[in-house]
Amino acid sequence: MNAPLFPTPLKTLLNPRSVAVIGASEDQSKFGGRLYKTLLQHRYAGAVYPINPGRDTLFGLKTFPNVDATPEAPDMVIMALPRDKVKAEIAACAARGAKAGIIITSKFSDAGPEGLALEQDIVATAAEYGMRLIGPNCLGLISPVNKLVLCSSPALNVEQLIEAPIGFISQSGALMGTLFDRAHGMGIGFSHCVSVGNQADLELNDFVEFLIEDERTEVICSYVEGIKSPERFVALARRARAAGKPWLMVKAGATDDGSRAAYSHTASMAGDYAALKAICERENVVMMDDPLNMLSLARAMVRYPNRRVRDVALITTSGGGGAITADQLSHAGIGLARFNAATQTGLAEHYAEGQAANPIDIGGRKHDGTAELGVVTAEIALSDPAVDLGLMVLTTAPDVPGLTRQLADGAERPSAGHKPTLYVMLPGRVAAPARAMLIERGLPYVDTLAEAMDMLKAWKSWSNHQAADTPVRPAGMAVTRAAAQGALGEGPSKALLAQAGIAVNLERLVRSADEAVAAAADIGYPLVLKVASPDIAHKSDVGGVALNIADADDLRARLARMQARLAQAAPQARIDGYSLQAQESGELELIVGARRDAQFGPQVVVGAGGVLVELLKDIAVLPAPVDAKSARRAVLALKIAPLLGAYRGRAALDVDAIVDTIVRLGWLAHDLDQASGDFEIEVNPLKVRLQGQGVVAVDARARIGQA
Amino acid sequence: MNAPLFPTPLKTLLNPRSVAVIGASEDQSKFGGRLYKTLLQHRYAGAVYPINPGRDTLFGLKTFPNVDATPEAPDMVIMALPRDKVKAEIAACAARGAKAGIIITSKFSDAGPEGLALEQDIVATAAEYGMRLIGPNCLGLISPVNKLVLCSSPALNVEQLIEAPIGFISQSGALMGTLFDRAHGMGIGFSHCVSVGNQADLELNDFVEFLIEDERTEVICSYVEGIKSPERFVALARRARAAGKPWLMVKAGATDDGSRAAYSHTASMAGDYAALKAICERENVVMMDDPLNMLSLARAMVRYPNRRVRDVALITTSGGGGAITADQLSHAGIGLARFNAATQTGLAEHYAEGQAANPIDIGGRKHDGTAELGVVTAEIALSDPAVDLGLMVLTTAPDVPGLTRQLADGAERPSAGHKPTLYVMLPGRVAAPARAMLIERGLPYVDTLAEAMDMLKAWKSWSNHQAADTPVRPAGMAVTRAAAQGALGEGPSKALLAQAGIAVNLERLVRSADEAVAAAADIGYPLVLKVASPDIAHKSDVGGVALNIADADDLRARLARMQARLAQAAPQARIDGYSLQAQESGELELIVGARRDAQFGPQVVVGAGGVLVELLKDIAVLPAPVDAKSARRAVLALKIAPLLGAYRGRAALDVDAIVDTIVRLGWLAHDLDQASGDFEIEVNPLKVRLQGQGVVAVDARARIGQA
Repeated sequence: MNAPLFPTPLKTLLNPRSVAVIGASEDQSKFGGRLYKTLLQHRYAGAVYPINPGRDTLFGLKTFPNVDATPEAPDMVIMALPRDKVKAEIAACAARGAKAGIIITSKFSDAGPEGLALEQDIVATAAEYGMRLIGPNCLGLISPVNKLVLCSSPALNVEQLIEAPIGFISQSGALMGTLFDRAHGMGIGFSHCVSVGNQADLELNDFVEFLIEDERTEVICSYVEGIKSPERFVALARRARAAGKPWLMVKAGATDDGSRAAYSHTASMAGDYAALKAICERENVVMMDDPLNMLSLARAMVRYPNRRVRDVALITTSGGGGAITADQLSHAGIGLARFNAATQTGLAEHYAEGQAANPIDIGGRKHDGTAELGVVTAEIALSDPAVDLGLMVLTTAPDVPGLTRQLADGAERPSAGHKPTLYVMLPGRVAAPARAMLIERGLPYVDTLAEAMDMLKAWKSWSNHQAADTPVRPAGMAVTRAAAQGALGEGPSKALLAQAGIAVNLERLVRSADEAVAAAADIGYPLVLKVASPDIAHKSDVGGVALNIADADDLRARLARMQARLAQAAPQARIDGYSLQAQESGELELIVGARRDAQFGPQVVVGAGGVLVELLKDIAVLPAPVDAKSARRAVLALKIAPLLGAYRGRAALDVDAIVDTIVRLGWLAHDLDQASGDFEIEVNPLKVRLQGQGVVAVDARARIGQA
Repeated sequence: MNAPLFPTPLKTLLNPRSVAVIGASEDQSKFGGRLYKTLLQHRYAGAVYPINPGRDTLFGLKTFPNVDATPEAPDMVIMALPRDKVKAEIAACAARGAKAGIIITSKFSDAGPEGLALEQDIVATAAEYGMRLIGPNCLGLISPVNKLVLCSSPALNVEQLIEAPIGFISQSGALMGTLFDRAHGMGIGFSHCVSVGNQADLELNDFVEFLIEDERTEVICSYVEGIKSPERFVALARRARAAGKPWLMVKAGATDDGSRAAYSHTASMAGDYAALKAICERENVVMMDDPLNMLSLARAMVRYPNRRVRDVALITTSGGGGAITADQLSHAGIGLARFNAATQTGLAEHYAEGQAANPIDIGGRKHDGTAELGVVTAEIALSDPAVDLGLMVLTTAPDVPGLTRQLADGAERPSAGHKPTLYVMLPGRVAAPARAMLIERGLPYVDTLAEAMDMLKAWKSWSNHQAADTPVRPAGMAVTRAAAQGALGEGPSKALLAQAGIAVNLERLVRSADEAVAAAADIGYPLVLKVASPDIAHKSDVGGVALNIADADDLRARLARMQARLAQAAPQARIDGYSLQAQESGELELIVGARRDAQFGPQVVVGAGGVLVELLKDIAVLPAPVDAKSARRAVLALKIAPLLGAYRGRAALDVDAIVDTIVRLGWLAHDLDQASGDFEIEVNPLKVRLQGQGVVAVDARARIGQA
């Protein structure tokens, strides 16, 4: 056991002084040939040791029969050997003193239990010597800032790597190569790109931590299929935020189909998308749908660090382009800034009446006499305090490159406030020189409106983030404890809620018509009657709910009818009795609940209740415990939020009581998670009354412990 | 007045034997210079007459001082003269016998009333001689099939025009040039592109008609800001459909911002988007958001004429790419086809267990021994009867061009059924040779997933179109007539509905508590009481509605309270009395209504009612009259449609009665449109009961005649 006392930090591992290429070759049809050539081509400054027992030199470099023959222990080794030869080679490299290794070879844990066992064996072998591994089933790494390319993708066959403070960690090797290629063509560079593969040893979080600490990285991009260590993920999200480094993420598996596709790809669980999304929202990790747009946003963010983007000035060379863009901005929820009087006056010098407004159509100029119209237009529009970003939509025009240059010049004038700009280059070849100019000046551009909208939506969401407060347990709320395990009926579920200080409606369990009539006199009419049975989860589906019971005669008649229906619809169900409850009034029905996510722990949900649950799918998920500010924000962001205010002649509803309920549910969830592990609790409906009149949980069910 | 008896058809106008370029020049800084050079460059076969009084020859062609000096009357003239010189020149050309003219110059009707007057004057001048005009404020036309380029855009500076059976009519000149440029780079060609500008004479519909008749056009694309002649538009949509030519459209002005941007651009009304959309849905004119994706879809449609696309087979080189694509397909509502047993068996020969399914990750191959794996994969997947299209998502791989070629070869094998394919080329430079190969083979590709999704969504919507039946007036329904003009209260509005055979609830107008109690005895409790006032549109906002009135005492008390509230909230309102109504039960509330769109005539709306109206914005618009099949399809496509079936223990609702109500409303709308012109009628709520129990209009209001 030679594992070192102090493991080498990733910073050192990813900047090795020497690299051994196992199976190096000159043959470009072989992985070792392509990798070796690519490594040499980018002028890596460290020592390179090609390993090939059959050759003395390869591309002019002295070649070694095996890793033991190299003049020193290589810091890093890389290999794409056949699967069955990997373990022996890793053992040899580890014994030789290699600090890190990259295994490209696939069919390990990605191919079933046998491969998993071999993979674990290899990790253990390396760990004995303190050697760290990247992969297997990965595509290697690309570190432009170190001129280090350990990746055989044809995408690396470029003249010059582009350095930029963007780090990219990918759980898919092919996507890493693909995005590198596309990004390179758009002038987008990187600090480091890493393909993490099966994450047998080093995993996504390790590399994210490295990028947070790396002074040559300002924005972190990631393509994720599953998270290995959720707690560490959360801690890193906070560290990234504290370091002022935006973290962008594309997560596969948002849908069942995507999840299945991801599952068939690697051995990692796609995980619960909604739970991860809730965590990301809280920590301001920005989730996007498209990996290329993620890189475009990263480029814009490194160009305009810490700039917030909400409303835009739209400058276009075409009324038609302006109209389509305005439609798309509106759909994306991005505002067209309303220009102030000074801006309008400034523009009116150059634009015809009615045209000195946002969007600005450069074709609407008043006269052709204004030299450099693009310069003054960009300067005036960006100087408006309401404008966060200049969106320049270029169509064909007599001189697209000249006009683009003018806009860029105007945006750089001091009075324009160094605000972000984004160029949408709609033409093809005609705009090529303009694209080259933008790349040279480091200005972000995209080629389609859809890309611009996707970027701006994500940028705005990042800009609008508000950090959560530290959750505080409500005064007087004790730690809650479930009295029983398993599926709980309505009564015990409500008891749990009441323990947490959540209002539940009065109820009495009765077993006969006479008992019912006696209890009803205490509660008062109108009443609700529900069957109480551990075997009936959906009471209304079997006729087990009667509403609006008006008096004693009605109660007897409705109970008899219910018993008859249940005998038909659920003859096997054990019936504990019937729950008699005050019929609660309420202006609106919500659903609230809590559950434990296998990866991310306790979470609270709140959303539109009643028939709207399935129709609207209007649900917010919040990691528990929840602070009041976050709870309020989530409630007010629901689609049904307009119904919470004064509405059609009735007063506003009791949002404070909803927020209090969510906070209490959050602590209840936290307590159940601590004490019982798995659990699930659902209140549907939670009736919401007018302001000051509170809320009440009218029905509830729960499960404590494993399902 | 020399206007010809038989006007020249557009077919001839757009294929002139000679063209005069007014203001031709060799100076490339001038419009006339760029236009003239571009025209010569593409080797137009007809006679070209450059007009320039200062030159004898231009680029070697004999040049004429004016249009009278040309050896014959030119079929076509084109000019970009200063605005004030246009009229005289058009007059001269018309007198000389020119058949058609293109006016590039702007600041006519696009710049206010004075410009409009001048524009109308010019059209009248030309019309005297039967000369037709394109523009003004346009960018001209490009007819690759005629090698005729009358457009000065730098986009036309290409070696060779690409001919393809795609026609494109654009209300924005800059967009035409832009899209031509982008399309050219992707290998997409055209039959004809026309920029229609202000449509002073020839308008969008004229050119659509031409493209329908043009045998070199198979798909019609259009960028539209406003429709000039709605009835002709509808007739043309039907002719296009009858001719088997898909008509695709991007319409600016879907949102208020877009509409404002379009308005500031041309003088045409952006029009009512929802009304146009309803017409387009009925006639299967496919509306898209992005003009480039419209051209991509057109390319695919001409490659695979009349193929219907619903479910896809997804073949990818990367599990990650497959996962992201599957997510995006799911969001877009495109299905992954479920492979049958034969397909799975076929794939299992080449793919590891669990991988022989849709999506197929080529990286999941069982062994490296299969030569041409792409060929067999595409062939097997496409041969599955459930597959309508092969979606090939390419990432970087050792040999992207080779693999793409294999997939294309496989798709061409006879057993693959000549099904459509779409290639998504995610890499940049690495995929360039593959793109060139696809262009050469005429296979559609796009560069991003977003473009593919947008295309597939539109293609599926086109594929799923079902032609409407001829609407039939319900047996026994007479032509309805409004008894009064202006704003109608609840009673007269319901009378109108009852005339059309729509069920309304019982009501009696009462003026005192005693009258109310007497009437209540006839109707029966529980009751609803509503104020009847021509001045109160939203009764519940001022306390003018009382529900659940239980008995006579309750009725007296609630009426007194209502009167007190109204005295406070609406002291000025004239009160006709109080409407006493049976309290109708219903399982679901809908909103239904009808209105007259200024452009497209009478229309019916149906959607979720009650509080859901504003929240869900779940509304279908149907041109009136409506056939029963279309009405049913629209109802079943609402978001709330799941609530119409059996739901949580209650039986299905009376969809037949909803359909009957829509059909009757459609005829009511038709009748009101014929008799009264403008009108508006709204029923909210329409209560829907269980199957066989009908629907009932519980509240209604209407306006007959101008607002």
